Amino acid sequence: MKKLEIVYGIHPLIEAIIAKKTIRKIFFQKGLKKASNSYKKLRDLSKKEHIPIQTVSKQKFFQLKNKNHQGVFAVLSPIKTYHIEDLLPIFYEKGQNPLLIILDRITDVRNFGSIIRTAACAGADAIIIPKKDTAMIGSDSIKTSSGALFQVPICQEKNMLNTIEFLTNSGLKIVSATEKSNIYWYNIDFSGPTALILGNEEKGISSKYLKISYEQAKIPSIKGVSSLNVSVACGVILYEIFRQRTKTRF
Amino acid sequence: MKKLEIVYGIHPLIEAIIAKKTIRKIFFQKGLKKASNSYKKLRDLSKKEHIPIQTVSKQKFFQLKNKNHQGVFAVLSPIKTYHIEDLLPIFYEKGQNPLLIILDRITDVRNFGSIIRTAACAGADAIIIPKKDTAMIGSDSIKTSSGALFQVPICQEKNMLNTIEFLTNSGLKIVSATEKSNIYWYNIDFSGPTALILGNEEKGISSKYLKISYEQAKIPSIKGVSSLNVSVACGVILYEIFRQRTKTRF
Repeated sequence: MKKLEIVYGIHPLIEAIIAKKTIRKIFFQKGLKKASNSYKKLRDLSKKEHIPIQTVSKQKFFQLKNKNHQGVFAVLSPIKTYHIEDLLPIFYEKGQNPLLIILDRITDVRNFGSIIRTAACAGADAIIIPKKDTAMIGSDSIKTSSGALFQVPICQEKNMLNTIEFLTNSGLKIVSATEKSNIYWYNIDFSGPTALILGNEEKGISSKYLKISYEQAKIPSIKGVSSLNVSVACGVILYEIFRQRTKTRF
Repeated sequence: MKKLEIVYGIHPLIEAIIAKKTIRKIFFQKGLKKASNSYKKLRDLSKKEHIPIQTVSKQKFFQLKNKNHQGVFAVLSPIKTYHIEDLLPIFYEKGQNPLLIILDRITDVRNFGSIIRTAACAGADAIIIPKKDTAMIGSDSIKTSSGALFQVPICQEKNMLNTIEFLTNSGLKIVSATEKSNIYWYNIDFSGPTALILGNEEKGISSKYLKISYEQAKIPSIKGVSSLNVSVACGVILYEIFRQRTKTRF
């Protein structure tokens, strides 16, 4: 299994970006001299490729003290990510009935890993995550997913709103899992191509995504406990989809 | 037997107070940010319930360094456990359609906490655990359960085989969740009183319990990943029970 890879130094990082490696985030040291051309080039490239940037204190660099880091390092993703625009035609060509999962700002790596594992078990075709505000695709999520991270393709998208619109136009029914609905999850017809949106552990799904969802699915909480864990909610809905799709075969 | 000493985190503590748990003292970290609504709610509730409060230095929290304590912890009196023989008559007298969960050697505290949270959300009436080979009913499980540990009674039984026989004789249908079955979970009739057995993360359910189960429910794994996390499997079956029982009302 690939471990999380760290690249440090300005030039190695420029090389990594040019080589189209999946870079999760670039960390710049606070108070770094910004005069050099190569520094500027790195900044410009990061911007162009929409790579998240964070400025951190010198202490963050102590773990790299023996490395010639030049005040910058980046965490590379060990996992190949895709774009759903490339995968969806393949699913359709294969005669599949696509089932996609969209994660709106799921930040807990254990939840992320557990969702991937559940998605693989329930037969989801791909998981779509944003470029920013998302759990790291790292060793922890691989571990929690029990290795399922290698069985379900992860798509990372820059503009989730555009992606959802693309999916709608491609014939997918967008369903948001939210308590703010009155429609119980099992009353939704999941027989056709479906994209299920799951939201942030605290804040739920962004209102802009709720608005463009075709349906909103509620899983009620009976004893007044806040709400289900997001990976459990994911399992409940994915297996309802399995139930509906399996039932209709007979 | 003392089963609990410390609860940490703002929300679990609010749940504990609302559930009328006996709290000896709440410790707040010195210099804690006091802006959040939940922090205020906790302060107000503590005052209202006359719970002693003490502000302590950061050092006091060092013992909790790996816990998500949010700058607050409390010392509780032990959690009360029950016997299902005492509770079942009460459920029947109240006209309930009992839904019980039996945990066969669930040893991971996070799984245990997550099952309790799911059980509370899905409206289960009680959780039955053995005396031995079971996750500790401690601060970690309370935290993972988001305080739901105070909302679902926990029964601890010495001889689980006798308990299952007692439940069978009391009119409950015993259903084991196992991949070794050919019957999909949604093809089982959950309309009557039910006890669902969930098994150990590695070994599954003991063969002696499988033998005396009335039905065995399979949740298939499609992409060949070993199996669902036990708390996700719990959610899938509990909400299928909810679906069946809600549907039949109309």
